[in-house]
Amino acid sequence: MKNEINIGLLGFGVVGSGVAQILDNHQEDLQHKLGVPVSIKKVLVKNLYKERDCDLPAEVFTTDLNEILGDSSIDLIVEVIGGTTEAREAIEKSLNAGKGVVTANKDVMAEYGLDLLQLADENKCDLFFEASVGGGIPLIRTLEDGLASDRISALTGIVNGTTNFILTKMKHDNMSYEDALAEATELGFAEADPSADVDGIDAARKMVILASLAFSTEVRLDDVFVRGLREIQDGDLELAAQFGYTLKLAGSAKKNCDGIEVAVEPVLVPDSHPLASVNNEFNAVYVYGEAVGETMFYGPGAGSLPTATSVTADIVAACRNLLMGVNGRRIHSPQHERHVKTDDRKFARYFHRIRVKDEVGVLTKLTAIYSRYGASLATVIQDSDNGIEADLIFITHQISRQQHLDIMNELNETPEVINVLSHYRVEGESR
Amino acid sequence: MKNEINIGLLGFGVVGSGVAQILDNHQEDLQHKLGVPVSIKKVLVKNLYKERDCDLPAEVFTTDLNEILGDSSIDLIVEVIGGTTEAREAIEKSLNAGKGVVTANKDVMAEYGLDLLQLADENKCDLFFEASVGGGIPLIRTLEDGLASDRISALTGIVNGTTNFILTKMKHDNMSYEDALAEATELGFAEADPSADVDGIDAARKMVILASLAFSTEVRLDDVFVRGLREIQDGDLELAAQFGYTLKLAGSAKKNCDGIEVAVEPVLVPDSHPLASVNNEFNAVYVYGEAVGETMFYGPGAGSLPTATSVTADIVAACRNLLMGVNGRRIHSPQHERHVKTDDRKFARYFHRIRVKDEVGVLTKLTAIYSRYGASLATVIQDSDNGIEADLIFITHQISRQQHLDIMNELNETPEVINVLSHYRVEGESR
Repeated sequence: MKNEINIGLLGFGVVGSGVAQILDNHQEDLQHKLGVPVSIKKVLVKNLYKERDCDLPAEVFTTDLNEILGDSSIDLIVEVIGGTTEAREAIEKSLNAGKGVVTANKDVMAEYGLDLLQLADENKCDLFFEASVGGGIPLIRTLEDGLASDRISALTGIVNGTTNFILTKMKHDNMSYEDALAEATELGFAEADPSADVDGIDAARKMVILASLAFSTEVRLDDVFVRGLREIQDGDLELAAQFGYTLKLAGSAKKNCDGIEVAVEPVLVPDSHPLASVNNEFNAVYVYGEAVGETMFYGPGAGSLPTATSVTADIVAACRNLLMGVNGRRIHSPQHERHVKTDDRKFARYFHRIRVKDEVGVLTKLTAIYSRYGASLATVIQDSDNGIEADLIFITHQISRQQHLDIMNELNETPEVINVLSHYRVEGESR
Repeated sequence: MKNEINIGLLGFGVVGSGVAQILDNHQEDLQHKLGVPVSIKKVLVKNLYKERDCDLPAEVFTTDLNEILGDSSIDLIVEVIGGTTEAREAIEKSLNAGKGVVTANKDVMAEYGLDLLQLADENKCDLFFEASVGGGIPLIRTLEDGLASDRISALTGIVNGTTNFILTKMKHDNMSYEDALAEATELGFAEADPSADVDGIDAARKMVILASLAFSTEVRLDDVFVRGLREIQDGDLELAAQFGYTLKLAGSAKKNCDGIEVAVEPVLVPDSHPLASVNNEFNAVYVYGEAVGETMFYGPGAGSLPTATSVTADIVAACRNLLMGVNGRRIHSPQHERHVKTDDRKFARYFHRIRVKDEVGVLTKLTAIYSRYGASLATVIQDSDNGIEADLIFITHQISRQQHLDIMNELNETPEVINVLSHYRVEGESR
């Protein structure tokens, strides 16, 4: 049995330095848990000559990945470089060198996860990725182990802290989208180029990871319907509140006999739903399992130490497996073939806000369009009216996404419609 | 390597039949996860001659524990008998027979957990108990693995569904305590004798289990300050709401350099806190870790299938260990010695509702008592007044439980005080 575990850390940014800090601060606790010391032996960095606020001696830093992979005393690689190309290559090389890998990289896991897990299996190595979704919340572990015996049918999550922060500020502090984004950037919650966050790409990657685990099937980024925050109109949040809803950028994954559907889009969540009160940069994932019913997992979605906590939890699990000689013994092949629902099998309620000319008979004409497409309406309200233009709000009963799209198209071609101001999917009630 | 796993199920009540149902329904999924079939080979029951709605053949049922323990093809025992004496004995015998154990038994784990875990270690067997706390919520796993690398400093939980259901009905439907309890009993959330629930004993047992894991130290049932629901006065919930609080029966465990403190009592939770909106029979545990910050885990706290989900997740974990030949390899001895805080080191804010004679100078006299004990007041309000009697509400800043008790004593001896109607600890704000 090994009497120590040595780690090769790839990357020493926000998360990497957090991992080093936790391993250092909690050494005694970890040693109690594992029975042996765990230390960082080498750290891969881009630049050796940079001042770093840490207790690691200068000689552990290197710019050469091969120096780390060639070190037979290193058992485990922790990849926190970020990005796709370099990180993916480093993970592949590590696995091929027979070293287990812990990664926080959602981009790589969303796009190449299946292949990498297979490579890990072939090399009898562990590949853990708890920190790739939901920062400090142990979600991957919960889906793999905690709900191992259940059949998950739906999963709804606020998995992007930046957009949740923006929407919280817009709702609670009446900020504009631009001001809220500016504050998020200032506080370090949004990056200089916020596209991946506000356009829903970051959340979509995380949903790919969660959905493929929850449903034990391949899920591709292309399978995810993605719509970001930029189309939200002034007044939408207030209108939503008026009807008892909170607007959230949420990921949603569902499965039934028709297949799976995965989407990231702004949705109206009933105020009574636990997700509605997840505020600021926090994340939460709501899971519906056949046997367990409703569960929710809430916590910090990002940040140095929370994310590093998840990385270190993976390190503990990987070390345990290494010490027991059972690393790389998980079965990672998906159980089910990939079946993705077509738009005519994706059902939901929809909220439509339509600006129309204030003329006699408009309402009748519009409701007739809904009827023609077989959509019945739960709510019809005329919101404002200046004598020339009026806003109509329709909330449908369950319709398919195809019906919703067809109705949108026809509305846009109707002369009395000035434009469809906004449209959102409406999440179901929680109990 | 084994090519099948056989289970001996002890007890076939609500949870036991749920476990059988999940193992049957999800056999294909489990076989994909584990690579081998998992079946129930024997079931211990009290009475063989009872109609049972299940697919298990009659010959698996037995009234003789030794028949199960003597069957060398049985690898794993699942204890869902409940109660203390018989269940504890069965667990001990199983471990001594070299069989791993999965239990849902909070009573046994709270009182004898430490000894049983040691016995499991000695026999190189697994002893898993996820279902003992929080029904379907994977809490034990989260504390042991998900937050393995963090140092947990506080944990607050709604861990008793019955009392949470009662308080929800009292708050949202303006029911009396008696009516709410009657409805809980009718719906099967409360037992015929509800004492263990409403007096906080059930929650205290669960807090012992959670606190000992979170802090890696021995926690005894005697260490828990317990106060149930029965002392709640008419008007307390409305008063709490007026000040922005929701009354919850919550367990709280904290640790600092003075030691640990564990309590179960009705507390005032700020409405903005995630726990305030945990309603009906749901459970939730809010965990504060040094590195991760705030996380919360929410779900069904009881029920046949949710609890059985947790039991089956433990079965999967135990099977995995058995198949890899690494069962019984966890280190269970507590890392830290038991240090319990004294009352003068337990700090909190307190809410006092005091009925006084409506005389000149009463308020001055009472506030002088608080000053004398070094307690400063955050809120002082006279709530109602009929010219003869008045209710005074005081909310203190942080004081020790000792200060609180001393003040209570002195108030009760003050001639102008008719009685102290109610007093509650006030939970801190969440962000």
